[in-house]
Formats: sequence, structure tokens, C-alpha cells
Amino acid sequence: DYDKLDNIVIGVVGGDGIGPAITAQAHRILEFLLSDEVAKGRITFKVIDGCTIEHRAEVGKALPDDVVEELKKCHVILKGPTTTPRAGDPWPNIESANVAMRKELDLFANVRPVKVPEQGIDWTFYRENTEGAYAVGSKGVHVNDDLAIDFTVTTQEGSERIARAAFEYAKKTGKTRVTAVTKANVVKTTDGKFLRICQEVAKDYPGIELDDWYIDIMTAKLVDPKRRTQFQVLVLPNLYGDILTDEAAEFQGGVGTAGSANIGKRYAMFEAIHGSAPRMVQEGRDKYADPCSIIRAAVMLLEHIGYADKAKKLERALDICMYEEKKLVITGRDTGATSEAFADYVMDTIQAL
Amino acid sequence: DYDKLDNIVIGVVGGDGIGPAITAQAHRILEFLLSDEVAKGRITFKVIDGCTIEHRAEVGKALPDDVVEELKKCHVILKGPTTTPRAGDPWPNIESANVAMRKELDLFANVRPVKVPEQGIDWTFYRENTEGAYAVGSKGVHVNDDLAIDFTVTTQEGSERIARAAFEYAKKTGKTRVTAVTKANVVKTTDGKFLRICQEVAKDYPGIELDDWYIDIMTAKLVDPKRRTQFQVLVLPNLYGDILTDEAAEFQGGVGTAGSANIGKRYAMFEAIHGSAPRMVQEGRDKYADPCSIIRAAVMLLEHIGYADKAKKLERALDICMYEEKKLVITGRDTGATSEAFADYVMDTIQAL
Ligand SMILES: CC(C)[C@H](C(=O)O)[C@@H](O)C(=O)O
Ligand SMILES: CC(C)[C@H](C(=O)O)[C@@H](O)C(=O)O
Repeated sequence: DYDKLDNIVIGVVGGDGIGPAITAQAHRILEFLLSDEVAKGRITFKVIDGCTIEHRAEVGKALPDDVVEELKKCHVILKGPTTTPRAGDPWPNIESANVAMRKELDLFANVRPVKVPEQGIDWTFYRENTEGAYAVGSKGVHVNDDLAIDFTVTTQEGSERIARAAFEYAKKTGKTRVTAVTKANVVKTTDGKFLRICQEVAKDYPGIELDDWYIDIMTAKLVDPKRRTQFQVLVLPNLYGDILTDEAAEFQGGVGTAGSANIGKRYAMFEAIHGSAPRMVQEGRDKYADPCSIIRAAVMLLEHIGYADKAKKLERALDICMYEEKKLVITGRDTGATSEAFADYVMDTIQAL
Repeated sequence: DYDKLDNIVIGVVGGDGIGPAITAQAHRILEFLLSDEVAKGRITFKVIDGCTIEHRAEVGKALPDDVVEELKKCHVILKGPTTTPRAGDPWPNIESANVAMRKELDLFANVRPVKVPEQGIDWTFYRENTEGAYAVGSKGVHVNDDLAIDFTVTTQEGSERIARAAFEYAKKTGKTRVTAVTKANVVKTTDGKFLRICQEVAKDYPGIELDDWYIDIMTAKLVDPKRRTQFQVLVLPNLYGDILTDEAAEFQGGVGTAGSANIGKRYAMFEAIHGSAPRMVQEGRDKYADPCSIIRAAVMLLEHIGYADKAKKLERALDICMYEEKKLVITGRDTGATSEAFADYVMDTIQAL
């Protein structure tokens, strides 16, 4: 409970590729909105530098010890996208820093809202964030030259806490339905367990209906304007949450427009949901990177630490600026604003609200 | 090679729920189109009855031995949807008959075309059909009350043959790009292997470019009218193929409009991609079930066994009837035709072509 804290430390992790450029802008906006609180000593910003692919590759760890140490001095973290090594990259085959941070800080709930009011879309995804296909990470087994095996893991505790988080959110916000999405007809042991636990948890929330669908048909349902508006809160194992939230974000304007909250009992991390776009950096275009997703993450961070009014303000300003930008694009007057100019415009808008 | 066979045996498996109703209609259409060949003794139809959920439950096997024996007497199979037991169902927890048949007959390539000519969509999905998350099936492990584990399996041979099938198809049809879809940034061991093998196989097809995307962002790309037209042939591990083809079919009018070919070295099975809709049967509405998907499967079957002209005819007739039906729905004159009436209409249309 952040109300009881005298001082809240907000860690800022730039990440890789376009990460530093866009994170710097979201950081500026947060400093602007929280300047009084900083002056009062209630809020402290802490920039954490070492979470770069170069440093991670050097120490051969998805999350170097010094970074973990710094992260654990923060209460909440704002994080830019990080680069995950791919086959053919110059880096060793280390795990995603993203995934490692979620596990290291036990950020079990990945909350991703997608809203398109004019189309009746108002979804909140509760993605389990530490288990499933992500649990064992890069530690699958090459049994021999022919055979490779990976593991999917579901625990009672892991499933129960994400199911409960989804139902608690539904209850708090007056929602009437939670939808569990699995592939329990095939991945029977783990997904079957996940679904059963959702059904158990549902019993504690009599006013809220639990329905369930398989992930394959869900991707089709989201496309259908007539069927998709029935969904409110969705709860999913890690991999299906990863997949379905990217599709969902597309209806809102793409992954570049969606923020993501990674919440645990002790820490919380807020991030852009898109990747680090190393190609933009190579082409020297990182200063034009779109900061909307990480600003959306900043909105969620403000809300999470108890500054609901400031969060609302920033959200409204961001919505307005995004519509303005869309208009410029549609009317062919888009001049390709830099991330910095966009952030300035957001702050101007806040002052005009 | 079917050209060399004196007699081709087409097995017909009704399945569960609405399966028997719609399969019967596709069967009638095939008999109509192939009547000369049946008279000549070139084609034999063989109805296989025992593949019902009741019989499967009774013997406690996803695919009873007597059914397997009958199936193996056929060259190709037309199959209606089957019911997979779910938690809470009266059936024991047996595996999907669908999945079992793919494994039992080693139908390693699941080929699913999706076409929307007026939107520039012309995709052919090559889904690996026997491994991945489906390999171990219901044989995951409950380690203890807390912990459940499932396994994902990728083999060299399994990946190579599906990759090669996709590239061969691309080559044969003059396509210039094959897209591999994995989650190799997280599921590194198995998906990483799958992707590497695709890259290896690609070297044998110099005129065809291989690109690759992660499954999460692919679900977003398919939604975007500007980006989705770049895809031609896609090759995917089992689970991602399952997921992405349902989404893809939605742009064509839903899973009810798409057929699916399951092809192995020795056998081939053609099926509707939708489920068995037991609710329609409970409500006595199975005779109104939409047979389009299984008729689409019949088109693929005809093409596969070497009757390309008949396949083209049936495809054209089906397309025409589907547009007619859509018009009736749009103009509010839809009278809810039965599957039988729809099949009659398709055959009338064939005669008018
Ligand atoms: C970058 C990748 C490891 C990550 C994930 O798969 O979780 C991303 O897609 C996301 O959704 O945050
Ligand atoms: C019914 C189910 C087992 C099956 C699958 O997951 O493969 C279906 O969704 C399909 O795509 O054919």
C-alpha cells in the first residue's frame, strides 16, 4: 500500500534500441507531473543504467546482479523495451531481460488494458506472468540431434493468484464477466489445471460469471465486431496472454499504443509492449520513435502508486495528442514529430486541460 | 501418387455433434461428382461408423482399434468434427480424436488455405501436425498438488518435412516468400530448433525468401490490411498453426468457411476446421448446421486425389452459393436453409456451371 510510504522510489530503465529515447520522454513527463511531490521528498527518481544488451551479454546474464540490486531499491519501475538475442545476433543466447525481470521481482500479473470506446471495446487482460511456457525459459533440453524438449509449468499458487487478481479487478470495477482463455482440450495437464483453478476461484465471486474459450477460437472472436464486445476481463496463461494482447492492441492502433503493468506483491514494473526496434537506431531514426506506449505505461504507474488524478490527466492528454497525430497523418500533414516534440505537446496539453 | 492406383478408397467419418449431418452432405456431393468413377470401380466410398464420442469413451481410447483398422483400409478420409471431452463432461479424460488420428496416420502437414481475393488475402498455412504442444497430449505430469508440467517436442525430421512441404508448395505455385512463425525468443530450445531448420531448408530454394516473425506480433499483423497482404505461405509449429489459422479464417468469414487438409506420406484426411457444436444437436438444430467448411474440405480432397477439374467446379459452386447465402442474410431474406438444401443448391449450381 503506497499511501503508507513516506518516500516512493521510481526506477527508470531505458533498455535497448529505441528504449532510452522513448523512456527519457516518459520520464520527463512524470517529473513534470510529480514535480511538487519530488520537491516534498515524497517521490524520488532513480535512473538505472546497466540494463543494456551490451552489459547483459558481457556478464552472460539476462539480468546482471548489479541491475537486480538497483531494481530492488525501487518500489516501482518504468522500463523501455529490451533486446532479446536471436539466432545470428552477436550476443550469447541469454534469456529475455523482460522475462527475467518479471521472474526476479515476482511480477506475477501482467495487466494490459485495451480500449476502443467508439467500437464498444473495453478489455482488461490479466496475463499470468511468471510460469507457463516462460517458466523454464531457455533451459529446455536438446535430448539428442533429433529431439528437443521444452517445458510448460503451471502451479496452484501461480494460477490462483492471477485468477484472484482478475476477479478482484472485475469486482472493483463492477464488471460482470471474467473469461478464461486456455487450450485445455490439448494441453490438458497444465492448462486444464489453470482452468480448474479459475473455476474454483470464481466460486468466491457470485456476481461475476466465468466463461471460458480456447485460444484458437478466441483470436477469431476478437476480430468479429459482433462477438468481441462481450469480453470484459480476461485471464490467461502466460503464452496465450502474450499472443492475444498483441492482437487486441492492434484494434486500438497497434502495440505502439498499449501500456503494460507487471505487478507483484512487492514490486511493480510498467513498460511499453512493443519491441526495441534496433533497426530504427541503426538508421539514426530513434529520436523519431513513438513514445505513446511507454507514456501509456506511465499512466498506469501513476494510477498504481495512488496518483489517480494525475493519471487521468495524463491519459486524457495522451488520448488527445494521439488523435491530433492521427488527424495529421490522415490529412497528409504529418511532419514526423520527434519523441521529444510529442512529449512537449503532451505536457502543453496537460496544462491546457 | 494416386494416378497409379486402380482403386481409391475414400473413408467417410461422421464424427460427433453436427458432424454426421454435415459430413453426409459433403459425402452426397462427392458421390454426385464422382458417380462415373464409382461406376467404373475407380473410387469406393467406405463409411466408418465407430468414431463417436460414445464408442471412444466406452473403450477409453481417443481412437479405438477397430476405427484405426478401418481407417487404414482407406487412402483418403473425409472427416466431420469430433468432440473432445472437457472437464465436467460425462466422458473420461481421453485425448482429442482429431489429434490422435493425425498422429496415428502420421498426417504431418496440416494445410489450411485462406483466401479473400477482394482484400488481397491469399495465404496458405503449413501447420506442423504431430509434434509441439500436441506431441505428448494428455500425458503431462502432475508432479504434486502444486505443480503440473506439460512438454513441447520438436524433432529434426518433424520440422524438416513440414518446412520442405511449405517450400515445395511455394515453389510449385510460384510464390516468392515463406514466413516462419515461432516464439523462438522465449521457447528457445524447440522453437529455436524449428526456426533454424526452416532456415536450413530455405537454402535449397534460392528463389524463395524466408522471413520470420514471432506469433504474438503475427496475430496483430494479420489484422492490419496494409501489412497482411505480404504473407503468402506460412510455416508454423503445431500450436501456433492452430491459433493463427482460426484468426486467419475469420477474415474469410469464420472457421465455418475454411477446410483443412491433413497430409502424410501414406494417408490424407480432410476435415472441417470448426468444432462439433453439441449445443446445436441438443437444441435439435443440427440439420441446419452449415456444411461449408466440410464441403471446402471435400474440394481439397478432390484436388489431392487428382481430380483437379472436379475440385475447381465444386469450389466455384461453393463460392457462388456462399455469396448467395450472404446476400440473403444481408438483405434479411435468409430463411435458414438446412444443410441438405444447401448441398442440393451446390449440386444444382455445379450443373449450371
Ligand atoms: C519480448 C518478449 C520476451 C515479451 C514476451 O513474450 O513476454 C513481449 O512479447 C511481451 O509481450 O512483453
Ligand atoms: C479440436 C482441436 C483438438 C483441434 C486442434 O487443436 O488441433 C482444432 O482446434 C483444430 O485446429 O483442428
